[in-house]
Amino acid sequence: MVIVKTATSIDDLKNLLKGKVGRTSSIGFVPTLGALHEGHISLFERAKRDNDTTIVSIFVNPLQFTEEGYRDYPRDIESDSVKAEEAGVDILFAPSTEEIFPPGYQAEFSLPHLFKALETQKIVWHYKGVLAVVLKLFNIVQPDRAYFGMKDPHQLILIKKMCRDLNLPLEIVSCETIREEDGLAKSSRNRLLSTSERSASAVVYKALCLAVEAAKVGGVSAMPEGLKILRKTIEAEPLARIEHIEISDDETLEPAGPGSKGAFAYAAVSIGGKRLTDNVRFKLGQS
Amino acid sequence: MVIVKTATSIDDLKNLLKGKVGRTSSIGFVPTLGALHEGHISLFERAKRDNDTTIVSIFVNPLQFTEEGYRDYPRDIESDSVKAEEAGVDILFAPSTEEIFPPGYQAEFSLPHLFKALETQKIVWHYKGVLAVVLKLFNIVQPDRAYFGMKDPHQLILIKKMCRDLNLPLEIVSCETIREEDGLAKSSRNRLLSTSERSASAVVYKALCLAVEAAKVGGVSAMPEGLKILRKTIEAEPLARIEHIEISDDETLEPAGPGSKGAFAYAAVSIGGKRLTDNVRFKLGQS
Repeated sequence: MVIVKTATSIDDLKNLLKGKVGRTSSIGFVPTLGALHEGHISLFERAKRDNDTTIVSIFVNPLQFTEEGYRDYPRDIESDSVKAEEAGVDILFAPSTEEIFPPGYQAEFSLPHLFKALETQKIVWHYKGVLAVVLKLFNIVQPDRAYFGMKDPHQLILIKKMCRDLNLPLEIVSCETIREEDGLAKSSRNRLLSTSERSASAVVYKALCLAVEAAKVGGVSAMPEGLKILRKTIEAEPLARIEHIEISDDETLEPAGPGSKGAFAYAAVSIGGKRLTDNVRFKLGQS
Repeated sequence: MVIVKTATSIDDLKNLLKGKVGRTSSIGFVPTLGALHEGHISLFERAKRDNDTTIVSIFVNPLQFTEEGYRDYPRDIESDSVKAEEAGVDILFAPSTEEIFPPGYQAEFSLPHLFKALETQKIVWHYKGVLAVVLKLFNIVQPDRAYFGMKDPHQLILIKKMCRDLNLPLEIVSCETIREEDGLAKSSRNRLLSTSERSASAVVYKALCLAVEAAKVGGVSAMPEGLKILRKTIEAEPLARIEHIEISDDETLEPAGPGSKGAFAYAAVSIGGKRLTDNVRFKLGQS
């Protein structure tokens, strides 16, 4: 079996990078939780196009999961290695939990205003965990560019703000969400859907597009109308249950309003108990 | 007048560093608040010996001062430039406040356990401000090594822990405190002392040495004895008033105890209204 070059410790990684340090060549980095799918692969391909060396990390970060979620998260490093190799990834970084969070680790990083805006979602602790590990991985890998999908807009906006506020010396590249033919965002969860659930799940992207269309045409005053359309369209699908919807400013994460330049409509929907999330970004008219 | 090459913005600095990026040569970095004295110069000289390029920053960081302290802090960039040039510094980085903390900056970094241990001193906000700016400066300058005096042990221990917890890719080099002949630690404040105050101020280092001697001989159980000697010796000097003394573990900042491998005795003393601080580090016997 062909398996990509793999480092399981920070020292391993530094050894693999030797000769690339003091480097004129560029490093592209894609942090993942493993369970790689086409969405990840498209990020690897983009990183490969832009950089001399592509590094992918696989780390199931305990700080961003509930205990149960952490335990149940799918882990298949062998299958992931093959996929990474096939995609042309140069180095896989798959550290242990202790390597990343050794005993005595106590650092806490926060973006108080953005976290405040996220409080309604009650998952600030999750994003705090994401930022903690991403910050460490950036410092370990020292990439020139890091690649993230647009599928989690909150995460993307937080990471970009962290980089700006800390002057981290890398570029965050956000990549379009990869979709099925009917618009459903690709996700490892999709294969858990039954045929009828799979067909019902197209409603998420459809509803987001309709909402954004309404919001864009009507300008800032049309946000409540956009949100109404989003809600009604999803509610019209009997198998779908709304967990959370919003139309938010893409810098402040507050509800989109008169000061907003860009915004995104976001939906988290449960279909047959499977949580599907998606979003559509849009600009607000500066006349 | 000879003045060192100076960057006043991050872009300026990047331009000066061009050709040193993709670099095989090393960068040594000394962050300062300006008002340069012999203590700083010795750090510059050490950085020069160890590295190909030496960068010094001068930035009076509003986050680590009271409003009054920030307003009154001495600023003399011209004189500092001459001193930096004479010491062979390659690049001076003297950014504006807005360059480092632009509108919308909201990042907060904390080390909760160490901050908790520092609560008795009531200046956690000060150290939080120090870490915030040091983290940004490290990311901007991207040094291989950064140099700090041992005169502020709390600061040094916090910065080292921040680097470890965040995997920052640089080495923190701690440098011995530079002293006058009678042991007084060099400081820009010393020149504010009258002749009698200057002579009285030798008590600080003397008391610290006596305390450490007692603590080392007696082992862990001798810490209260060491602290008593520290207090009594300073109190015997009529011009000196104790503001704060401690003998602390050099990793946890908690009072030195059975688990401590290394410790330091620390004193903040007011002499004629001038606050003098100093410390002496020591190992605890591992038999």
